[in-house]
Amino acid sequence: MRRRKKKGADKKLLSYTDYVIQNPIEFKGRWGKKFDNENPIYLELGMGRGKFLTTLAQKYKDINFIGIEMKEEVLLKAVEKAYEKSVENILFIWADANKLREYFDDGELKRIFINFCDPWPKKRWAKRRLTHHRFLDIYKNILTNEGEIHFKTDNEKLFEFSLNEFCNVDLKLKNISLNLKESEFEENITTEYEEKFMGQGLEIYRCEGKK
Amino acid sequence: MRRRKKKGADKKLLSYTDYVIQNPIEFKGRWGKKFDNENPIYLELGMGRGKFLTTLAQKYKDINFIGIEMKEEVLLKAVEKAYEKSVENILFIWADANKLREYFDDGELKRIFINFCDPWPKKRWAKRRLTHHRFLDIYKNILTNEGEIHFKTDNEKLFEFSLNEFCNVDLKLKNISLNLKESEFEENITTEYEEKFMGQGLEIYRCEGKK
Ligand SMILES: C[S@@+](CC[C@H](N)C(=O)[O-])C[C@H]1O[C@@H](n2cnc3c(N)ncnc32)[C@H](O)[C@@H]1O
Ligand SMILES: C[S@@+](CC[C@H](N)C(=O)[O-])C[C@H]1O[C@@H](n2cnc3c(N)ncnc32)[C@H](O)[C@@H]1O
Repeated sequence: MRRRKKKGADKKLLSYTDYVIQNPIEFKGRWGKKFDNENPIYLELGMGRGKFLTTLAQKYKDINFIGIEMKEEVLLKAVEKAYEKSVENILFIWADANKLREYFDDGELKRIFINFCDPWPKKRWAKRRLTHHRFLDIYKNILTNEGEIHFKTDNEKLFEFSLNEFCNVDLKLKNISLNLKESEFEENITTEYEEKFMGQGLEIYRCEGKK
Repeated sequence: MRRRKKKGADKKLLSYTDYVIQNPIEFKGRWGKKFDNENPIYLELGMGRGKFLTTLAQKYKDINFIGIEMKEEVLLKAVEKAYEKSVENILFIWADANKLREYFDDGELKRIFINFCDPWPKKRWAKRRLTHHRFLDIYKNILTNEGEIHFKTDNEKLFEFSLNEFCNVDLKLKNISLNLKESEFEENITTEYEEKFMGQGLEIYRCEGKK
């Protein structure tokens, strides 16, 4: 762990009490109550500065959104976005995705988004990739029947690895794009990293895996 | 159809009576008898000059191989290769893959190879691609339970299309490579087109689909 850059970020973060969940374990199995409705819940892992998730939340008011991010400085940017736009159907968890099982009950989520997660390129790091079957098995547990994982990356090796991992745990692949810009997938909502990578002319890969 | 380039090719081809099946319909449901054993049968579609299939056949003597190719000039090259090397576990069919259902019975094949098939890039040509679900459904019928389709191409768009078509017909994908040279797939046997494309520095895509 490197030292925090902005010491004040964590305090500031916790002041957004309507948006940042202090003790997510408390809501395991009860997220619907927290949102005060029975709408489906979509989760984004490592959602960074939150452009993707806040845009989705503004567009789909009848879905609840949760973002998990472990770096407080970037999480703060996301929270500020949601606050400025007065988005109501969104919550944030300041935590490591490794703790997912503690926060969500079986079948509690309808969809999980993973966008441009760290590729952890060395083979001995494979277990840390958010699309490693160790994680996928957890996602499958906390997803509803027919729940889906939507994945985007600029990293060819990570995409190849992920496709195979999806298959390994019997997630049914669909809507695979090897070059999102040219594919027929419509209504792409970009993330901050995606815009950066597209600006560099990189190809974007995308797929969905269904339970 | 364009005019035949080598007028003599077809006559020459038919003179290789040990290798070229004149009337494949006759052997539907009886290929084992033709090979005179009960070994599994692997089929290659559009196998061109036959380097891939003859190499495999020399390596795996306890498997029977059949190649289908519709252009007589290239098929002749493949037949000559098999003849020169005295390969015994191989047969060739001079025909269009569209006729597959007439030549093979349910569950008669253990594996089907498709290597660098024509990409038919325009959307209205999609049905002609050998990985269109129309074809995949036929392959599924003539494959054994747990039978497999092994597919290679240099064409990104065709590969993307094919991955999605495999998923659409519920073939279970595995061993997906987005860059065969760098992937962990071992024992790659190259085809004539593959060597040409690799020489041009192109990436090679590969996947397997299992029933
Ligand atoms: C490359 S950035 C992508 C951010 C955003 N998804 C985007 O596309 O713009 C990866 C983000 O995931 C976060 N992250 C990485 N591993 C995580 C984990 N195990 N739990 C929570 N967040 C994680 C990082 O802090 C970083 O903000
Ligand atoms: C691009 S070449 C590849 C040849 C070989 N597989 C290789 O990789 O070197 C495609 C081959 O498929 C054959 N072909 C295309 N469509 C076919 C069909 N419907 N039935 C049989 N052969 C076909 C063509 O004649 C050609 O030889």
